[in-house]
Amino acid sequence: MVVVSFPDPVLLAAVGDVPGVEAVVWDPAGEESPDERIEVVIAPYLGAASALGAVAQLRDVRLVQLQSAGYDGVLEVVPETVGVANAAGVYDAATAELAVGMAIASLRGIPDAVRTGDEARWVGLGTRTSLADRRVLVVGYGSVGTAIARRLSTFEVTLTAVASRARAGDDLVDTVHGIDELPRLLPDHDVVIVIVPLTDATHHLVDDAFLSAMPDGALLVNVARGPVADTDALVAHAGRLALALDVTDPEPLPDGHPLWSAPNVLITPHAGGNTTALLPRMSALLRDQLSRVAAGEDPHHLVRPIVKT
Amino acid sequence: MVVVSFPDPVLLAAVGDVPGVEAVVWDPAGEESPDERIEVVIAPYLGAASALGAVAQLRDVRLVQLQSAGYDGVLEVVPETVGVANAAGVYDAATAELAVGMAIASLRGIPDAVRTGDEARWVGLGTRTSLADRRVLVVGYGSVGTAIARRLSTFEVTLTAVASRARAGDDLVDTVHGIDELPRLLPDHDVVIVIVPLTDATHHLVDDAFLSAMPDGALLVNVARGPVADTDALVAHAGRLALALDVTDPEPLPDGHPLWSAPNVLITPHAGGNTTALLPRMSALLRDQLSRVAAGEDPHHLVRPIVKT
Repeated sequence: MVVVSFPDPVLLAAVGDVPGVEAVVWDPAGEESPDERIEVVIAPYLGAASALGAVAQLRDVRLVQLQSAGYDGVLEVVPETVGVANAAGVYDAATAELAVGMAIASLRGIPDAVRTGDEARWVGLGTRTSLADRRVLVVGYGSVGTAIARRLSTFEVTLTAVASRARAGDDLVDTVHGIDELPRLLPDHDVVIVIVPLTDATHHLVDDAFLSAMPDGALLVNVARGPVADTDALVAHAGRLALALDVTDPEPLPDGHPLWSAPNVLITPHAGGNTTALLPRMSALLRDQLSRVAAGEDPHHLVRPIVKT
Repeated sequence: MVVVSFPDPVLLAAVGDVPGVEAVVWDPAGEESPDERIEVVIAPYLGAASALGAVAQLRDVRLVQLQSAGYDGVLEVVPETVGVANAAGVYDAATAELAVGMAIASLRGIPDAVRTGDEARWVGLGTRTSLADRRVLVVGYGSVGTAIARRLSTFEVTLTAVASRARAGDDLVDTVHGIDELPRLLPDHDVVIVIVPLTDATHHLVDDAFLSAMPDGALLVNVARGPVADTDALVAHAGRLALALDVTDPEPLPDGHPLWSAPNVLITPHAGGNTTALLPRMSALLRDQLSRVAAGEDPHHLVRPIVKT
């Protein structure tokens, strides 16, 4: 039996029994001492990076399974002999639909309609820019980026994908461009959707030069992580560009921050993942991951390999 | 040469020369007398039904080409020997993307984020309902309804289509249900998108019985015509249901109308069609229609046949 810790009983109940797995409840962020037999730690949904230092006290631990797709700050605190798997795929549907919804809302004037509607007034929106016919650049073409592109593919848009390195395309795009091609690509796109992981290489990727390369009236959608964009640059370009941001830096964005009142900015409070889509997908992923570990196989989505065996 | 009247010079310029067609400008809603040689009248974008009575003074007219998909009120005022073609397809992309965008906005809490954002405050949206995993019923499965279904097909939803009569399915749905099956279908769907033409049969289709059959927390999206829904019934069910309405009855919805302040209602001011997508699609349709007429063929999208020859 592989001993696996769940951070809360709700998640444990949703996953249910997995053959070959003995489940215990342990929240690495809490005060309680862990069962010293734990070999696999499922991280809490929020605050994993700050909680996971506690894993170091477990002698037999060999895998940390995150509940997030991002893993910024995690590898630094988890002992380096311990493998780390992320929850790639679990957030695809919820994040991708929010990205598409925010793009349509921004382009078609839904925020303006909410405002005049709250004043109980019918005010025409004029001729708005449709998503149809737009040239859309998806920056970050992993699991969520592909899910965004798949949804956009039915909206009569032209799709371009960018990843950290150029590679062959798929059923959605002819080719995947390397991130070094961004300066050439940005001027030719109307909508830019950013969904890169936050790393040293992507910190402030969306800076003044990036935004300056986007044409007047273009829309930037950030559903990645706040620090992928330079907030001062966002404030400076808001109005010339439309911004739809599910993430900000800092986060939460402080009351009264200039970004709140910058023109043509739609902000949602990091709402990309927390939906009804999460629990069924997370449970299915965990069942699959734990079954693999119990069978002596490597789990999927390792962002750092397992060294201890 | 077929003599064709355009209601404004902008549309004429966008269409350009069509072989076999002599184009003149005549606005049926205006004061000017028409060129008596006109055989095809292109209706104005707005107010076609009230303007088209003027067609009766044209001796040689045989076709009215609408710029709208809907033709409520038109057949009553155009002489019955004159054919009428609508602009089916032209609004598909813009209307379908707005329907999807309104559904996502409503489900995911974008209006709430706009409101707290305007107060410069970060307020979490909690666990929202994703579009993913929803059972979506598209009521009205013509050109726009199919475009909506095609866009929804990539969002991990279950799709059901309803048309005026049951028929075989397509690449998106196994079968198209008849509208008589609605009472049985409504209780099993989380999102209902209405995109039927307004006719005597669909007037107040969405009444108290229709809305009562929808489960608690379900979302109604109306991108059809305002009178397809009974406004009093909408007000009564708002809150128990979420409503996303691009059309209302009456329209414009008067300042201070109770629907403005009903809970969980998102209203856009009949913004489904007026986008940058319109002119290129309308121009392409008109070029194709006029080429067919000039070649002695029937145009597409006849909602009443041409009798005069």
